[in-house]
Amino acid sequence: MSDNGIHPDAGKRQKILESAFAVFSQKGYQQTKVEEVAQHAGIGKGTVYLYFTSKEELLREMLKAMIKKYLSELKQKLAEETDPWAKLKVMYTIHVSLLQENPSLVQLHLHDFAFVNDQFRSWLETEKEDFVNHIAAIIESGIQTGQFRPLNAKLAAALIISSLGVFLPPHSSECFSVDELVDLLFHGMSRRVSAQA
Amino acid sequence: MSDNGIHPDAGKRQKILESAFAVFSQKGYQQTKVEEVAQHAGIGKGTVYLYFTSKEELLREMLKAMIKKYLSELKQKLAEETDPWAKLKVMYTIHVSLLQENPSLVQLHLHDFAFVNDQFRSWLETEKEDFVNHIAAIIESGIQTGQFRPLNAKLAAALIISSLGVFLPPHSSECFSVDELVDLLFHGMSRRVSAQA
Repeated sequence: MSDNGIHPDAGKRQKILESAFAVFSQKGYQQTKVEEVAQHAGIGKGTVYLYFTSKEELLREMLKAMIKKYLSELKQKLAEETDPWAKLKVMYTIHVSLLQENPSLVQLHLHDFAFVNDQFRSWLETEKEDFVNHIAAIIESGIQTGQFRPLNAKLAAALIISSLGVFLPPHSSECFSVDELVDLLFHGMSRRVSAQA
Repeated sequence: MSDNGIHPDAGKRQKILESAFAVFSQKGYQQTKVEEVAQHAGIGKGTVYLYFTSKEELLREMLKAMIKKYLSELKQKLAEETDPWAKLKVMYTIHVSLLQENPSLVQLHLHDFAFVNDQFRSWLETEKEDFVNHIAAIIESGIQTGQFRPLNAKLAAALIISSLGVFLPPHSSECFSVDELVDLLFHGMSRRVSAQA
């Protein structure tokens, strides 16, 4: 490790994390040996321990790296849109594509989150809260422009993030379309008085 | 075990399941020994194994019993209401009370679901699907009565069930009210044309 606490070979660390994702998501965390991750990365088991102190740390850092990458890409795509409505639709579309292109993510999500420690859990809750605030700010700007009615933007953001769960088992991203979900969230379930006029 | 495959002492089995819930949710599944569950139930460790073959089976059966009891009570309360709108509101209210009265349930949900096997996972998905269909039927009847607009009832049901997640960390049942969540789902986020007339 270098003086500033950063490993000198960030590329090798990244390669180990990618191998951890590949092997954990295929075999499951419990069934995987650190040696198998090392083999997948084409390095020795000892080298893995230069970067990560334990299998649990490897899982934790892998999950953190994945979540950070996902959220940063998502925020960048959201920044490319100006319309609040379009931003939210883009978020759903990216999320559904991610699930469709990486079915093993669903497995990982359901199986492996229990093995991470409380420190990771706090980190995850902070990231989630930060993302809720990011979406809430988009909603606030939609309220400013008059596209959305005055509402609790934080609750709406939490609802939108929870609603991503409709694409997880027992359903899948094939069962429902993004368009109909967005329509439901935006226009609600109740009969609209205006539609009767 | 009796001839029909049912344990003769259902009361004792129930007592073990209740102790498993108490100890697992306090200490965590991984950190708990079967002996501690036995002690909590006031019986010997050997007796636990007359009812459950392993700690994992004990967790699985405990989760199944809890989920079944919760869903059956919920369905009964829903049946007592006639109005579809009121039924859904009752569902949220019961769910939030459950979380408020049993904060350890949240821990259990987040920590212990990873330890259960694939057979349990299939059972859980079937139960969830069954509950989605139950809620979808309520929505269908609301469409019939004209309270809800024509919409994909199954998607709306999946959204409603996912929306229960807004009361889990990083937020809690104190952050948002059932009334504002129901209002959001029923009336949507967008500015209503009728409100401008």
